[in-house]
Amino acid sequence: MKIQPVKGTRDFYPPDMARRNWIIDGWKKVSVRNGFEEYDGPIFEYLKMFQIKSGDEIVDQLFSLKDRGGRDLALRPEITPTLARMVNQQINSLPKPIKWFSVPRLFRAERPQKGRLREFFQWNIDIIGVDDVLADAEVILTTLDYLEDVGLTPDDIVVKISSRKMLAAVLNEIGIPAESLEFLYSILDKRNRLPANAFEEMLIELLEDSEMVRKVQVFMELENIQQIEGMFGRLEEFDEIVNLMHYLNRMGIGDYYRFDPSIVRGLAYYTGIVFEIYDKASELRAVAAGGRYDNLLKDFGGPPIPATGMGMGDCVLEILLREKGLLEVQLSKRGLDFFVAYVPSIMAFEDEHKSTPFEVAARFARILRKNDRNVDLSYKFTSLAKQLKQASEKNAEKCIIIGEEFKENNLVVKDMATGEQELVNIEEFLSKLKS
Amino acid sequence: MKIQPVKGTRDFYPPDMARRNWIIDGWKKVSVRNGFEEYDGPIFEYLKMFQIKSGDEIVDQLFSLKDRGGRDLALRPEITPTLARMVNQQINSLPKPIKWFSVPRLFRAERPQKGRLREFFQWNIDIIGVDDVLADAEVILTTLDYLEDVGLTPDDIVVKISSRKMLAAVLNEIGIPAESLEFLYSILDKRNRLPANAFEEMLIELLEDSEMVRKVQVFMELENIQQIEGMFGRLEEFDEIVNLMHYLNRMGIGDYYRFDPSIVRGLAYYTGIVFEIYDKASELRAVAAGGRYDNLLKDFGGPPIPATGMGMGDCVLEILLREKGLLEVQLSKRGLDFFVAYVPSIMAFEDEHKSTPFEVAARFARILRKNDRNVDLSYKFTSLAKQLKQASEKNAEKCIIIGEEFKENNLVVKDMATGEQELVNIEEFLSKLKS
Repeated sequence: MKIQPVKGTRDFYPPDMARRNWIIDGWKKVSVRNGFEEYDGPIFEYLKMFQIKSGDEIVDQLFSLKDRGGRDLALRPEITPTLARMVNQQINSLPKPIKWFSVPRLFRAERPQKGRLREFFQWNIDIIGVDDVLADAEVILTTLDYLEDVGLTPDDIVVKISSRKMLAAVLNEIGIPAESLEFLYSILDKRNRLPANAFEEMLIELLEDSEMVRKVQVFMELENIQQIEGMFGRLEEFDEIVNLMHYLNRMGIGDYYRFDPSIVRGLAYYTGIVFEIYDKASELRAVAAGGRYDNLLKDFGGPPIPATGMGMGDCVLEILLREKGLLEVQLSKRGLDFFVAYVPSIMAFEDEHKSTPFEVAARFARILRKNDRNVDLSYKFTSLAKQLKQASEKNAEKCIIIGEEFKENNLVVKDMATGEQELVNIEEFLSKLKS
Repeated sequence: MKIQPVKGTRDFYPPDMARRNWIIDGWKKVSVRNGFEEYDGPIFEYLKMFQIKSGDEIVDQLFSLKDRGGRDLALRPEITPTLARMVNQQINSLPKPIKWFSVPRLFRAERPQKGRLREFFQWNIDIIGVDDVLADAEVILTTLDYLEDVGLTPDDIVVKISSRKMLAAVLNEIGIPAESLEFLYSILDKRNRLPANAFEEMLIELLEDSEMVRKVQVFMELENIQQIEGMFGRLEEFDEIVNLMHYLNRMGIGDYYRFDPSIVRGLAYYTGIVFEIYDKASELRAVAAGGRYDNLLKDFGGPPIPATGMGMGDCVLEILLREKGLLEVQLSKRGLDFFVAYVPSIMAFEDEHKSTPFEVAARFARILRKNDRNVDLSYKFTSLAKQLKQASEKNAEKCIIIGEEFKENNLVVKDMATGEQELVNIEEFLSKLKS
């Protein structure tokens, strides 16, 4: 009998878990220092909730299940719908702005691919209640604060930025009717993942006007606002992206971002600034993406409150950090602080219990642990040499040896890196431990 | 439109999340200092895997779903089957003993009750590869290390301990055939949750012998090994529980445990020491439970390797800690280290960018954050008084005020607890920050 895990899921053995913890702890630390508070919701919600934001097409990508009453549930594929539900529930009592983060475990019933698994973790930060583009900037700055922290530089990554307001204004100038926009966005979003002719065919089919198609294609290639103003004049809808870039420059991260009108984000619900962060060197999917979604809380039955946010999954990030040589080197190699070994051959101790050497070692280990030191010992009554081997396997910094000296209130402390041993008085050792 | 969460799940708003993090961080810290390494598996596995350990009856308690190929999956109701699968997969390369812990999110499709939700967290510790009762003791000691750490004393909780080996030997002495044991265990396990006469009727129906039933009932009421020896003589199967209690006494936790032959654990897979930890004062379900399961790895297709472990859910624990007044008092009240405020009326600064007061404040906040201080600021261009109010709402320890003084390289630092303000030179402030 051979039992397999489900394809697209991961087993986290201790070394894998150490990597996962390092990534998630970093996300949490950067969130908190940027003034975000942590929240989470359930792993599953009513299926219909996920359709509000993403339409019926999301249903194919969901793991669905039923509750005992037969109602349709789904494993969450993203946390934003839960965020909207939770914020709306307490909208009157929550102080604004709401700056929340979460590291949900998410699920997609897709075929697993590189950087895209069925089960993954995603860092989410959101600012709710601020319509100023400063909030979009703060989301980008916080995201970069993390990526800088793990060692990524402007040579490694680029934040591609655009604006849905600008895009809508330009498409209007080109003459595209408002009712075509939603479907057009989903096509434009696929541009970098489609062959050029397939992309063009989709545009022609939707717009039925080769001049419009040409203008859209020229626009998507433009590299700065000046070129866009050259084509369409200066429109007031360009203000937010201009202000954002101005502000990012002043915050000293001008080297990290690039204006890119081809960044669209497929989903209909984005309303303002949109951005995606890419590895410059490879063909990896986006490391992170986000933008403004001012209508979502209203769509979820709440008041019209502006919001902006970002999501970053752990799979692409881990591949990127590994490729750059930034992953293993930064993991803490900390093993045990102490391994407590004992000389098995010595006689029982003369204490009230006539304790065995193991019992003395175990009691000493307990004292060390109560002082928050990471400690282990051998459960086999085996030779000191074998215990020292186990200490070394467990990556212990020091090994304490309980031997005949213990009867005179002394310990042998062995440094596992240098091999040096010293005889230490127990009282002195413990008072040093506590200080 | 009103969107509800699914019954039996929880929304973790920031104060709830702080409680959850405090509990889970405590579990992790105590695990690591006791020499356990963290692992985790997927949230869902093939349904049939959960039937290996717990039989077909578990299927009713599972949330089941299907993968794209139509195979039956289930959300994990416990992590031990995943542990067995993972250990068997790498059995030859893992150094023994394996001391692993995990804090899985688990799911049960039951009707929610007090202390029993559909979605919860459970601390699990397991030692694999040690047949000595020392490993069972270490599991109990580690569990108590945590419960002591959060302030619970022998006045609050009791570890009820028994032994399946002892139980099987006694039931054999009473004359109960071996093939009745598995079903008998599941009845005995229900004793404390059933009315006395219902329990007796179930025994009579199974055993069909009133003298056997009487003996079983007398045995379940016994309070120490001496009484059992008085009834049945001293059997070698009593050694492990005697050794365990002897060892726990020497480790100084004699006040925490009580021998209790009525502790059985319902599941067939326990083979040795079994224990459950209860609140002494209330009718709560067990806070934690565990025991030895020497056959499980073999049942999962691996070699016969002894194992022992413990599980503790977050729901009962949280209720208990709240009842004892130990919950809210221990949560860190740490909010922001600094809130950076600015005087909105002052003129633009004379720097190269002619920065606005907000931009100066935001750049200063960025420096503080890069030095790992938790910092926020207001995104609204509002009065200083309103910014100070926001600093106070966000529980900031200090408020930094960027005003005219900034042009002379000085900051005003306000202590939010005392209200005291001092003028500080920026260079001095930053060098103190870094030290």
